[in-house]
Amino acid sequence: MIQNLSSVAQAEGVEESRLRRLVGIGHTTIVKNARRDIPALGIGEGLSTKINANIGTSPLTTDLDFELEKARVAVEAGAHTVMDLSTGAGIDETRRAILKAIDVPVGTVPVYQAFAEKRFDMTPEALLHVIEAQCKDGVDFITVHCGIRLEQARRLSKKTRIIPVTSRGGSVLAAWMLKTGQENPLYAEYDALLEIAKEYDVVLSLGDALRPGSLLDANDYFQNSELETLGELTKRARQAGVQVIIEGPGHMPLDTIVDNVKYQKLVCDGAPYYVLGPLVTDTALGYDHISGAIGGAIAAAAGVDFLCYVTPAEHVGLPDVEDVEKGVIASKIAAHAADIVKLGGKARCEDERISRARGVLDWHTMEKYALDKKTRARIEKAKNDEPCTMCGDLCALKVCDDLIDKEDPKDDGA
Amino acid sequence: MIQNLSSVAQAEGVEESRLRRLVGIGHTTIVKNARRDIPALGIGEGLSTKINANIGTSPLTTDLDFELEKARVAVEAGAHTVMDLSTGAGIDETRRAILKAIDVPVGTVPVYQAFAEKRFDMTPEALLHVIEAQCKDGVDFITVHCGIRLEQARRLSKKTRIIPVTSRGGSVLAAWMLKTGQENPLYAEYDALLEIAKEYDVVLSLGDALRPGSLLDANDYFQNSELETLGELTKRARQAGVQVIIEGPGHMPLDTIVDNVKYQKLVCDGAPYYVLGPLVTDTALGYDHISGAIGGAIAAAAGVDFLCYVTPAEHVGLPDVEDVEKGVIASKIAAHAADIVKLGGKARCEDERISRARGVLDWHTMEKYALDKKTRARIEKAKNDEPCTMCGDLCALKVCDDLIDKEDPKDDGA
Repeated sequence: MIQNLSSVAQAEGVEESRLRRLVGIGHTTIVKNARRDIPALGIGEGLSTKINANIGTSPLTTDLDFELEKARVAVEAGAHTVMDLSTGAGIDETRRAILKAIDVPVGTVPVYQAFAEKRFDMTPEALLHVIEAQCKDGVDFITVHCGIRLEQARRLSKKTRIIPVTSRGGSVLAAWMLKTGQENPLYAEYDALLEIAKEYDVVLSLGDALRPGSLLDANDYFQNSELETLGELTKRARQAGVQVIIEGPGHMPLDTIVDNVKYQKLVCDGAPYYVLGPLVTDTALGYDHISGAIGGAIAAAAGVDFLCYVTPAEHVGLPDVEDVEKGVIASKIAAHAADIVKLGGKARCEDERISRARGVLDWHTMEKYALDKKTRARIEKAKNDEPCTMCGDLCALKVCDDLIDKEDPKDDGA
Repeated sequence: MIQNLSSVAQAEGVEESRLRRLVGIGHTTIVKNARRDIPALGIGEGLSTKINANIGTSPLTTDLDFELEKARVAVEAGAHTVMDLSTGAGIDETRRAILKAIDVPVGTVPVYQAFAEKRFDMTPEALLHVIEAQCKDGVDFITVHCGIRLEQARRLSKKTRIIPVTSRGGSVLAAWMLKTGQENPLYAEYDALLEIAKEYDVVLSLGDALRPGSLLDANDYFQNSELETLGELTKRARQAGVQVIIEGPGHMPLDTIVDNVKYQKLVCDGAPYYVLGPLVTDTALGYDHISGAIGGAIAAAAGVDFLCYVTPAEHVGLPDVEDVEKGVIASKIAAHAADIVKLGGKARCEDERISRARGVLDWHTMEKYALDKKTRARIEKAKNDEPCTMCGDLCALKVCDDLIDKEDPKDDGA
């Protein structure tokens, strides 16, 4: 743990003593399974905003090579973590292959496997068994929807929500509770869960089973009462020495995002906040990565620590490799726009570098820092055009260039 | 004018008397050249956020059919206006063809043509002559960079800004002023300009010649002093019975956007605000439409009335047809996310429609309202898969569907 603190402090350019204090009070987490040999990742207060990419097979589409390619592309494009949400055949093999293929933290949602295997015969013990097996494999963080309670599941209704449950883990647990009449096993067996997490140094990502699936369902009883439960569970995890991250929506009107972030930080006493999007409109079919980038930038600037990407395929199909890359890039732009606010000069220096290059038409530097291959190819083309095809000799940078003060700013004694 | 008020009120679903009052005090503008036979467009307070798409030839790339195709694609994708920024050969022909091809308001930047034709021999009279010719052709709004003054041009320096001038019109005027030693003709001859605008009922879009070209140049002396000048010119235009819109950045850190919008509304006494992006990072090379969507959504939610799109080609080349479509879609998402905040239920009903369809897996409705052909094709594929490939039978919408209250919300008497 001390070694992890030190490497994270170095990677983030923060004081180790400050990081230790923030980790100590649970405002920042260090993500890395004790059994895994990867660089530890810091997520939380004082650190840069992190990005997660979801991949994984579905019951109808199972292709390990395809998932491994998506995992690699996600990491190359800048994802800090990858979650394997597989529910197709060979869940164990897929997870293990992904853990081997990439050296960033990997997360899972164990209830998917437990329910896929046992359906309504899934016992609390079976679920804990799957969780332990995944932790043993080296998974670094797991989404556990501990906050949805039997009482809430019984109140679910299409009268009060357009989409009663949009979270897959949430729907599985709600269905299980309603069918068996028993309390959520992840809540009822939370102490056992904490023991497993502690043993493998796995971070619990407390899931939002009741997140809204539409802007019109946002900030309602279900969402907020679940968050209150997650606040209690955060306290219990801290007492047990287990690190937690809190998951959040989802779909939220733009002007409610900042308040939601403040509410989460209050209720969960500063625990890192991990949001999906959030999407600021339900209408951006095929372009939810853009809707998510808008929400993500606002959320992260307001204090969200970890953004789960949304791909252009969201709501219309399974993402392909290009969707994964686009989703990561959109989240990366959102995270950086927020880091300029949260971290100031530490993030802004990247903008300065690009803008100084742009100001002198230094295409070489712009090409070097372009976000993807496609853009590099475009810049390569622009580089060879003289003058540049955008404006020809009516270039804003050239027209008055010899008429204004050209002294090096470094020479400015003023 | 009375007929225009009435049609705009109907299109926007607002009271005509309220619209008349807002137009009367200059908070809202009705855009349509007196000589043009198109539906009038309302831009400003109380109305939905509008989107502009820039097209136009460059000295090195002149292809009329290509520009016409971009114009049509922009309008089909949802652009409310198109600006022709042509500087290549045949500027007059290009503009006239665009005016004929589409039935939305068309804007131009006359100083491009005047300077392209005369360079430093451009006299104030020659510039006014080009402006009048363009208005006669039926242009509905023109960008005129009236706010940059000789004094500011003389203070431009690479010591104080990374990119002294990024606006093309601004650089042309700054260069002309520095070379001739004369005041900005658009400022000096503002009364003559107002007369022309009045005669043809053309809206003046007061340009921001000194907008920042980098986040690091944002909110500085140049930007703010120009805005103060635009505030004065707004008053003079209103006294002359000419409608104005104010142009804004550009590049701005996310957390300064809301204050910038408030400042513009204060200084320009509620005049409509028209921003380019704004971009919340300088680093999103090849993806500036996403950076611009983030800034645009925040700006429009805070009161911006009119968003100028940014395409993925921004800063790396001339946009092609696909770039134009992507730029419009990104701006449309930003505008709608903002309208949910500004207009409430009037905008949110579109989200409700999609979410209700999503909740019952009604792919037909989702396909109908998809943002483009590519997404419709994806949905077409999803529609034919049963169960859907995303989650198979582990579908959040299906797993607990028969376990929760299914009554039609319309039957709810509570």
